[in-house]
Amino acid sequence: MNLKIIKGHIIYTKEKTQFEVCKDSFIVVNNKKIVGVYKKLPDKYIDVPIIDYGDSIIIPSFIDLHIHAPQYMQMGVGLDLELIDWLNKYTFRSEEKFSDIDYAREVYPHFVKALYDNGTLRSCIFATIHNDSTYVLIEELRKRGLSAYVGKVNMNQNAPDKLIQSTECSIKETREFIESNSFSELIKPIITPRFVPSCSSELLKKLGEISCKYNIPVQTHLSENKKEVEWVKSLFPKNPNYSDVYREYNLYGREKTLMAHSIYLSEAEIEMAKQDNIFLVHCPNSNMNLTSGIMPLTNFLDKGIKVGLGSDVGAGHKIGMQHTITSAIQCSKINHIINENERSLSESEAFYLATKINGSFFGKVGSFEKDYYFDALVINSGDKLINNLTPLEQLQRFLYCGDASNIIDRYLEGQLL
Amino acid sequence: MNLKIIKGHIIYTKEKTQFEVCKDSFIVVNNKKIVGVYKKLPDKYIDVPIIDYGDSIIIPSFIDLHIHAPQYMQMGVGLDLELIDWLNKYTFRSEEKFSDIDYAREVYPHFVKALYDNGTLRSCIFATIHNDSTYVLIEELRKRGLSAYVGKVNMNQNAPDKLIQSTECSIKETREFIESNSFSELIKPIITPRFVPSCSSELLKKLGEISCKYNIPVQTHLSENKKEVEWVKSLFPKNPNYSDVYREYNLYGREKTLMAHSIYLSEAEIEMAKQDNIFLVHCPNSNMNLTSGIMPLTNFLDKGIKVGLGSDVGAGHKIGMQHTITSAIQCSKINHIINENERSLSESEAFYLATKINGSFFGKVGSFEKDYYFDALVINSGDKLINNLTPLEQLQRFLYCGDASNIIDRYLEGQLL
Repeated sequence: MNLKIIKGHIIYTKEKTQFEVCKDSFIVVNNKKIVGVYKKLPDKYIDVPIIDYGDSIIIPSFIDLHIHAPQYMQMGVGLDLELIDWLNKYTFRSEEKFSDIDYAREVYPHFVKALYDNGTLRSCIFATIHNDSTYVLIEELRKRGLSAYVGKVNMNQNAPDKLIQSTECSIKETREFIESNSFSELIKPIITPRFVPSCSSELLKKLGEISCKYNIPVQTHLSENKKEVEWVKSLFPKNPNYSDVYREYNLYGREKTLMAHSIYLSEAEIEMAKQDNIFLVHCPNSNMNLTSGIMPLTNFLDKGIKVGLGSDVGAGHKIGMQHTITSAIQCSKINHIINENERSLSESEAFYLATKINGSFFGKVGSFEKDYYFDALVINSGDKLINNLTPLEQLQRFLYCGDASNIIDRYLEGQLL
Repeated sequence: MNLKIIKGHIIYTKEKTQFEVCKDSFIVVNNKKIVGVYKKLPDKYIDVPIIDYGDSIIIPSFIDLHIHAPQYMQMGVGLDLELIDWLNKYTFRSEEKFSDIDYAREVYPHFVKALYDNGTLRSCIFATIHNDSTYVLIEELRKRGLSAYVGKVNMNQNAPDKLIQSTECSIKETREFIESNSFSELIKPIITPRFVPSCSSELLKKLGEISCKYNIPVQTHLSENKKEVEWVKSLFPKNPNYSDVYREYNLYGREKTLMAHSIYLSEAEIEMAKQDNIFLVHCPNSNMNLTSGIMPLTNFLDKGIKVGLGSDVGAGHKIGMQHTITSAIQCSKINHIINENERSLSESEAFYLATKINGSFFGKVGSFEKDYYFDALVINSGDKLINNLTPLEQLQRFLYCGDASNIIDRYLEGQLL
């Protein structure tokens, strides 16, 4: 036994319909995992030292299911454009710079520090096509003690020359990447075709083979923008829909799969996502910024589809997941105003997506139930007036108005980072 | 002559269609006002000392046309409700507390500091019905050197007992308020009926008389929520529309007038707003948070209506006007996705609204053109990588990703605050 006890106002979501709010309570942690949450500490723990956070709130730490590390520098820039123009004018130029490992060494520490500062202790990250720079990213994550799935991006067409690799090279480097000794229990590889237009059918096929052979999960983009959907239709006219292209090549549901955006799905695709247990990743800020559209999020949830949340930095302009939570709520309210048949997302539900659903991509993560990893943030506004709010109001205040400076401690798998 | 010269990357909007970007340039200020912006400093100024901000950007300071000071403490809290329930469950309870001047002395310094920190150097503020607490607010604004129109709120019906005054008392205290010696060139009173449902026709009539007699501008709410619009219709069945109730009682366009929200306007009301030169105040975060609706902003602008921007704290959850700017853009993009006939708001246009249009409520404010007051913010991310962006990209980065810590200096009417 390696016990520790954390005390404060404990808040998490076991179910999406409500917050569990445990005022002045105790979390007992054994090594990496949670033993239980107690209002009154059981006698058997009476000799275990208590870390007492007073009037702070303690919540599951954030997980980001969709973020592009190389776009950190362009966050907030060039958002007057839509997806394809934005990729060509800003994003590909940003990503090209990572052919220079020294540039990666300059930028990635800032990106990883921003994840740490903002309490995003686990994330699913798109890097670039460049393995050497991506190893720099992984090393920075390791130094900060963060957990992540990191993807070397695959592209062999429809991008600037400097970002295109031959199919052979892209596959060879993907194998080298997943077999490298950079990975650990906390940091793992993920197969990352950028999106259908960037990949030939041959490349998609070989990536699917690697994913299945090595049991490596998959992340990519799906149905973000109407023009993109039309483009995919013209590239793969024989496939009945966009999702089916990924599925044909074993990049859809054979291993754990993240499909970012998923705005314009047909009924058949919605059914496929449910059958194949896909994580659709809602990225509300990105979708507003690039005028992409709004995912019918609550309709998806009510159909039993698994939907997580992503910041999608750099098209999303905030790393802190509290901004993604509140923007998801705002977007769903707009959807509800337009169409009364679509209900809005409640605060507990949005929080549940950002913690328990997002966490489930990593295993028993994102809740304070028994046997979950103890991944947590300790939040304190540092303002007596605000700390006089109820614990739930303190959480609301943080989600809507808070920033990294309100996070006073971070725990991953039981360890203080 | 009392000259000073400020140097840096100077950005402002003379027209809404584009940013004026003056890299490494000089603003010459004489006493309170701008003489000119120069790429090369004219010889006659060669002996004037220069305040050199290096690679910082210099922009007009922010103006907020709609903000509720007493709601500062509830910002971010209780946003799962719609307007009327939110007023009853949270807002009125917040405002009741200001019957205690000691509570005002505790809270208002934090509110005013937040305005200062976030670069909102001028604002149009709803206080509460309580004169004594409102004098505390005015004193705090004065101590920080900020400019504002401050309103004692009028309500004589449809609110909790503690927030209702008799018509006689409400009018008497309004007179005392506007005649008090709290005001100055920088801080002025504004007539503030909360909204039609809170005021009898008699109260509205007398407020209109005061506004006209003393030439005092007016701020209130208009057409924020569908249920509210129906309610007004039931209260004033003889008036053809909501706007007409205010106009009947001389609270609409006789003096400078701010109408917050203005979402559900009829064609007749749109025409009235144009004819009477009303400032409609768009509050996108509030409108999303309370599921109120989305103002058809660009359609209004293209019809020649004057639209400004407001944070609407506490239904809006961010004081920094950069959040209102980017949320206005996001909302307009959603409107465009839904209805292609409604174009989205460009970044320069949103900035123009927040600076030059909002500033025009205060006179020659919100631009760096000749004879404008020199009201400015100096912005520096403190990050070498970001300061390597172009000046316009630095501004974009600040608007989307920045916070108060990026504002390194603040000038109001030529004075460093």
